[in-house]
Amino acid sequence: MTKNDEAVSPLAPLRFPRMPAIAGVRFSALAAGLKYKGRKDLLLAELAPGTQVAGVFTTSKTASAPVLWNRDILKGGKGRALVVNAGNANAFTGAAGFETVDITVAATAKAVGCQKSQVFVASTGVIGETFDGQLIAKLVEKMAKGLKSSNWKAASEAIRTTDTFSKAATATAMIGGKKITIGGIAKGSGMIAPDMATMLSFVFTDAKIPAVVLQKLLTASNKKSFNSITVDSDTSTSDTCLLFATGEAKNGKITSAADPALKEFKAALDQVMQSLAHQIVRDGEGATKFVTINVTGAQNNKAAQKIALSIANSPLVKTAIAGEDANWGRVVMAVGKAGEAADRDKISISYGDHVIANEGGAVPDYDETPVAQYMKGDEISISTYVGVGRGKATVWTCDLTHGYITINADYRS
Amino acid sequence: MTKNDEAVSPLAPLRFPRMPAIAGVRFSALAAGLKYKGRKDLLLAELAPGTQVAGVFTTSKTASAPVLWNRDILKGGKGRALVVNAGNANAFTGAAGFETVDITVAATAKAVGCQKSQVFVASTGVIGETFDGQLIAKLVEKMAKGLKSSNWKAASEAIRTTDTFSKAATATAMIGGKKITIGGIAKGSGMIAPDMATMLSFVFTDAKIPAVVLQKLLTASNKKSFNSITVDSDTSTSDTCLLFATGEAKNGKITSAADPALKEFKAALDQVMQSLAHQIVRDGEGATKFVTINVTGAQNNKAAQKIALSIANSPLVKTAIAGEDANWGRVVMAVGKAGEAADRDKISISYGDHVIANEGGAVPDYDETPVAQYMKGDEISISTYVGVGRGKATVWTCDLTHGYITINADYRS
Repeated sequence: MTKNDEAVSPLAPLRFPRMPAIAGVRFSALAAGLKYKGRKDLLLAELAPGTQVAGVFTTSKTASAPVLWNRDILKGGKGRALVVNAGNANAFTGAAGFETVDITVAATAKAVGCQKSQVFVASTGVIGETFDGQLIAKLVEKMAKGLKSSNWKAASEAIRTTDTFSKAATATAMIGGKKITIGGIAKGSGMIAPDMATMLSFVFTDAKIPAVVLQKLLTASNKKSFNSITVDSDTSTSDTCLLFATGEAKNGKITSAADPALKEFKAALDQVMQSLAHQIVRDGEGATKFVTINVTGAQNNKAAQKIALSIANSPLVKTAIAGEDANWGRVVMAVGKAGEAADRDKISISYGDHVIANEGGAVPDYDETPVAQYMKGDEISISTYVGVGRGKATVWTCDLTHGYITINADYRS
Repeated sequence: MTKNDEAVSPLAPLRFPRMPAIAGVRFSALAAGLKYKGRKDLLLAELAPGTQVAGVFTTSKTASAPVLWNRDILKGGKGRALVVNAGNANAFTGAAGFETVDITVAATAKAVGCQKSQVFVASTGVIGETFDGQLIAKLVEKMAKGLKSSNWKAASEAIRTTDTFSKAATATAMIGGKKITIGGIAKGSGMIAPDMATMLSFVFTDAKIPAVVLQKLLTASNKKSFNSITVDSDTSTSDTCLLFATGEAKNGKITSAADPALKEFKAALDQVMQSLAHQIVRDGEGATKFVTINVTGAQNNKAAQKIALSIANSPLVKTAIAGEDANWGRVVMAVGKAGEAADRDKISISYGDHVIANEGGAVPDYDETPVAQYMKGDEISISTYVGVGRGKATVWTCDLTHGYITINADYRS
């Protein structure tokens, strides 16, 4: 059983967004049958000559073969093609895994007409099972003939595993008088935790930005988006986020990430990345609540993020939210276990606008009735002030439910 | 609903052990009705004059009032009484929490006839709710009149919260020709993770060992027992383990933890502490499998423990075990996310005696049939060699099931 047999997450956006064509970007997707039957599981994206690339990857010490390949070719800063398969992660597959990547890359380079070092690869799915690169290689030539700039929906479908809905986001910005478009897709719903969140995301823009600058922009934006979400504290072997800039918008020359001309672009990129990150949380396995954790008053921002993640990853906090129980004692526990400085007698905790605890204890005459009502909603915000400094952080997560157990106790079989 | 309404854990020992009287130790327990109705929730233990004490406590930054009190008086090294209540943790209760401790301690010191600085206190249960120390104070005098050395069962019952069975263990040893007896009780089943595991444990012996030596013995034994278990990675505000030595066995003088005369005693202490720690895991909320995680080949023992805990705490590993699925890909993932050195191409993984992966990939002709059979058992062992050094560690955990969600989505209400 996979989660795709099941209902769409109750937290899913109402509809797939209207996605614009991005000059220099074309997609093709089909059902290769690597694992799933009767649905798209293979994506080919073709990028215009000259496309610049940036990337961030999992920090896992057991990173997959495609991650290692991408990290290596990223040094060149150029990308002409991207191949993504769903159903098999090609991770912990030893020499066979590298061979699979090599066969895939060679066939794609031929089909698209580029160098092998310009072909990025991503695989997601089961870990530890090898698969034959020929299964992909024999299809890419056909796929290259069906490339379309409008194929966003098919592209986002083809990279899904246990996702219950397709994820995409778009935004526009001006760079020096030229209109820039950004569009991205993502997948992920389990094995989600920072550095990187367990996910794949591919973002495309027609902006003309050199790879070295693009990398700085992506790293900064990633920190505030994918690296600030968690579903289950597990980090995958395959996490990959790539940002491709085709340059077709022909904006003026950019040589520094600090260039004021990038101001709107940065905001638009953050918007797309954050939207995709939130969509991943909204598709958290078994999720019924979208949860925002704010921490303020920490020693510094890093400490604040550690405390926020401690709260967001606590099974006891997450199950209490699932039970619509404002069990703030568990939040205190999670602050305590984070290992970062906190002044127990200054801690305050709010659920939404409801202040529950202040200066180290429950507020006088605390009335649980409105809070109980608040907990019935599907968007919950928990804010904690820890009383030692000015550090702050926001992370996003979901609740922990029977659905998570059902999905994960039986995923592989 | 509390877990006590439910069936006893399927992993519980067949029976409560036969516990011996320990010279100088007497118990009294009753139902104070602090939270639970109709069952024992208050324990008084009286220790003979001259009893030496050692303790280890939670590392939480939001430790409870009783933990702070115990840490403080532990410097004196002497204990004459122990009061434990279940149902309210007296944590995050500000000044009121300290007042509750003060009232409890004063009444107990009077009832037992000792100094306040010789009265240890532990509270376990809901966080963030105050309770009146008078509720306990008014009962201790009566309890002091009912003290018995045989009251082990009642003592272990009185400290339970969501535990489904009472936990006790005993062992004997010789110190310089004198027979020494050790006996201990423990509680805990959720909010369990090292430093300390979320739990209370009280161990008693008639050995004559000075507090300074006793502390070293307890710290060492704790490392291999309570600090090597995890149920859900959450660390409580109240974790406490106290070791009382009455000295009534009148063994020869001990002045150093390195004294060879302590060899048998150390082994017996380890046996009691490990038995209690395993019983806590066996009562892990919703647990259906007792899981042993062995890691070898790490850079050092500390790195090995970090990797072992990463595996033991991974929701994806734990749900796979619940689903009786030998999903070793998730073990690879958990090794990777631990952040400690591992040689991906040398990793080997075994479930029980079944070698599944070797030198970085599945073994040739891997036959899943016997492994699938092994996964149906209720004791699962997963061993991972990570190929970079000689560090090793063992931790114990349980699976993550629907039962955990049911218990914790609805605990407080």
